[in-house]
Amino acid sequence: MPPKKKEKKAKEVNETTKNDKNTKKSNFSCCKIVSAIVAVAVAVLFYKFYNSYLVTPELPKFDLNVWWGSSSTKTQDKSIRPFRIVFTDSMQENLRRKFEAERRATATKSLEETSHFGMNSDVVGQIFAHWRFKYKYGRRANELNKLNHYKTNIQGLDIHFIRVEPENTKNVKVLPILLLHGWPSSVRDFYDIIPLLTTPRPNYDFVFEVIVPSLPGFTFSQASRKPGLTTYQMAIILRNLMERIGHKQFYVHGGDFGHIIGSHMATLFPDQVLGFHSSTPINLSKLAHLTIMLGSICPKCIAKDLADRIYPYSDKLKFYLDESGYLHLQSTKPDTLGIVLQDSPLGLGVYIIEKYLLFTNPANKYTLDGGLNAFNNTDLLDNVLMYWSTGSITTSLRLFKEFINNYEMEETLARIPTSVPTWGLRTKHDIIQQPDFILRWKYPNLVGTTNLDDGGHFAAFEKPVEVSDDIFKAVKSFFS
Amino acid sequence: MPPKKKEKKAKEVNETTKNDKNTKKSNFSCCKIVSAIVAVAVAVLFYKFYNSYLVTPELPKFDLNVWWGSSSTKTQDKSIRPFRIVFTDSMQENLRRKFEAERRATATKSLEETSHFGMNSDVVGQIFAHWRFKYKYGRRANELNKLNHYKTNIQGLDIHFIRVEPENTKNVKVLPILLLHGWPSSVRDFYDIIPLLTTPRPNYDFVFEVIVPSLPGFTFSQASRKPGLTTYQMAIILRNLMERIGHKQFYVHGGDFGHIIGSHMATLFPDQVLGFHSSTPINLSKLAHLTIMLGSICPKCIAKDLADRIYPYSDKLKFYLDESGYLHLQSTKPDTLGIVLQDSPLGLGVYIIEKYLLFTNPANKYTLDGGLNAFNNTDLLDNVLMYWSTGSITTSLRLFKEFINNYEMEETLARIPTSVPTWGLRTKHDIIQQPDFILRWKYPNLVGTTNLDDGGHFAAFEKPVEVSDDIFKAVKSFFS
Repeated sequence: MPPKKKEKKAKEVNETTKNDKNTKKSNFSCCKIVSAIVAVAVAVLFYKFYNSYLVTPELPKFDLNVWWGSSSTKTQDKSIRPFRIVFTDSMQENLRRKFEAERRATATKSLEETSHFGMNSDVVGQIFAHWRFKYKYGRRANELNKLNHYKTNIQGLDIHFIRVEPENTKNVKVLPILLLHGWPSSVRDFYDIIPLLTTPRPNYDFVFEVIVPSLPGFTFSQASRKPGLTTYQMAIILRNLMERIGHKQFYVHGGDFGHIIGSHMATLFPDQVLGFHSSTPINLSKLAHLTIMLGSICPKCIAKDLADRIYPYSDKLKFYLDESGYLHLQSTKPDTLGIVLQDSPLGLGVYIIEKYLLFTNPANKYTLDGGLNAFNNTDLLDNVLMYWSTGSITTSLRLFKEFINNYEMEETLARIPTSVPTWGLRTKHDIIQQPDFILRWKYPNLVGTTNLDDGGHFAAFEKPVEVSDDIFKAVKSFFS
Repeated sequence: MPPKKKEKKAKEVNETTKNDKNTKKSNFSCCKIVSAIVAVAVAVLFYKFYNSYLVTPELPKFDLNVWWGSSSTKTQDKSIRPFRIVFTDSMQENLRRKFEAERRATATKSLEETSHFGMNSDVVGQIFAHWRFKYKYGRRANELNKLNHYKTNIQGLDIHFIRVEPENTKNVKVLPILLLHGWPSSVRDFYDIIPLLTTPRPNYDFVFEVIVPSLPGFTFSQASRKPGLTTYQMAIILRNLMERIGHKQFYVHGGDFGHIIGSHMATLFPDQVLGFHSSTPINLSKLAHLTIMLGSICPKCIAKDLADRIYPYSDKLKFYLDESGYLHLQSTKPDTLGIVLQDSPLGLGVYIIEKYLLFTNPANKYTLDGGLNAFNNTDLLDNVLMYWSTGSITTSLRLFKEFINNYEMEETLARIPTSVPTWGLRTKHDIIQQPDFILRWKYPNLVGTTNLDDGGHFAAFEKPVEVSDDIFKAVKSFFS
């Protein structure tokens, strides 16, 4: 830069310093006045906003028989057919060849110093090694087929589900319960909890018959080629599935998208859902989010013993920003991302498993193994292979965009209270947590909540014992 | 819901309606007062914010010899070695086999009705078909090697560049110019413009010697394994490259990241950069963005004849939100995304080409072919193959995270004006546009700007004639 400029700059700096001193006092009192004005304005605005929420929207009417199949095949087969998972030899051979031909996915090493740029290349290598050398396709398929799988056509789509009836039902009532997974989960999340729910236990005069569907477009359930198949449409499909199976009334448990769908079932079919147990107990309304945000002023007043899990909210926002890139892309361009994930088995695996590691405990990001060693690699890969073998990642990603596309209805439904008895289980590390009073706006019949001192977002998968205990406890309390 | 509840709700609704009528008038005047208070508060806050911007930060001191190579190899080979692009037979064979073995990437069809969920499966099919049946690897490599390629080691990294000297230099001065690409571009963007710059033209007593480097970590230039190699560090590396070639002083043209890096070169080395021509002329400071946003109040006052390109800003924000998912993910988890893209050739192609189609003209999103037919598929695939053959997508993505990680310094540099003569070329459809007065805060020596009535974000690639004309015109005006 020419020297003339520099002098000018230096002069400017001096002047500013002088000015600073002179105006310091007046600035201070001015600042106070401005703050007060802003505070009043904000308070008035919020008051108006809250006020507008006093009116509960009318429950919208939904067509309960939307046809999601192709337009040409309107003759519906209503049978329930047995189904088996097949991880074929040719698939294994294909993947083996893919894996041996090139090591592209593992070719780029992570940066030298510890900084989080996504999944660490050593962790990727570990997953890859397990997949190549230790994962037994046929044996896993046999294991996964030990439960009874079925498919049946609902509203034009072949819906897959697992159904397990309790063996020993002497002196106990059998209660049907629907378990709903989210993304990037599958029915695999519930394998360990199913036997715990179907086995009678002391002090309980009931036991569960468990139905675990794959969400439409996820793994073994058919996707629609028509737009609009979002959460509340899935709620209708799954209610129709339960009726097809023969259950007019039933209990529901869900987490992640499974929570949202379960919540919609409780809202749309309060006479059919006997009780709702959620491992992601959240009220999705704007009012709820805003209240949590405002709670920053006094975390203990708002959240009591949950305060440490929710606040400081600025940390939470930073975390959301850092960790919601996948959400942003999936909500806007699921197909573009899907094309890529559908073509790379290890890429798909890494993308899915990253979510498991991170949302189990956000602190895993800062550990060397990324949290992988807390899991059985085979369990994680079972889930990945369910997506891979069915080529369904793209159609599963579309749910994020459908959710955003139909957000107005989500907000409406979030504002309509349901009378269904509800119980919330909060794991320690789950991403979003809300205190009971906020949950009650949506679930006025909130019978209870549990704060687990462990576990994360994939509660049923991580903590089957604790979650099954909680479901038994919740359902018992729904009776009384 | 029990009937009791419904009655209560109906009652609530009635009450609210009654209240509404009573308070309508007082609400109205209250609303006015609140608006006035908020307006004053906002005005005061902005005044304070703008005031804080009157002080220009000191230019930070940078180490111009940071070693980005591995720590063990500190003996540096300073030679400039010829380099040739090789698209090998084995690569072609490998891809052919990959493509024939499975059609996974093209297996999922887009939704039936026209709704934009990412790249349409028919467009993907079109790209795929061209790649499989029409793209000739060897022939393309020969074509691309007609220009002279070199590599030389700068600060521990092998940096690739094209250097083309004009053949006919009778009666003309030869001016060196550095052309800087962005993401997901490569040196390929400049193939058509290079001969236009190295050929003398009437009414100009100068012609260019063109140097086109690959950014570190992009395609043929080596990546560092150390964190921190962000835009201004690249500016230093590329200045050192120009000195290695023998040019103490030179001109710079850039777009996208190439604009940011070129701008940093002009800021850090104002005595070496003789003139800066940008096809993405933007001031990156917060002040600039805020001013554009505030301009919504009166677009014509702020932006004059650019008003239609920038406003309504709410539409722009919606567009940014819809289209920045890739940015969000790349800025937070480049490695995870990179693992996937590095493993799927067609996935990589679709991901990269989507950016070309969309940022050339956002309206392409709503056309059946996505804008693909406006391009020569071979040109687009050349660029994809440069990334694929070098396995460099992950390291290129890391620049987004480095940019965010070092954002404070970006903001500082954006606030330090450069004395270098500058010229901005605005294409019609570019994503971000700013009027001259905002550009002058950063480029006080802004000699001129051109508003092209066509073209998009990849100006040099799309409109080589217009951009070369503009560079000649700009450089001539820098003299006078």
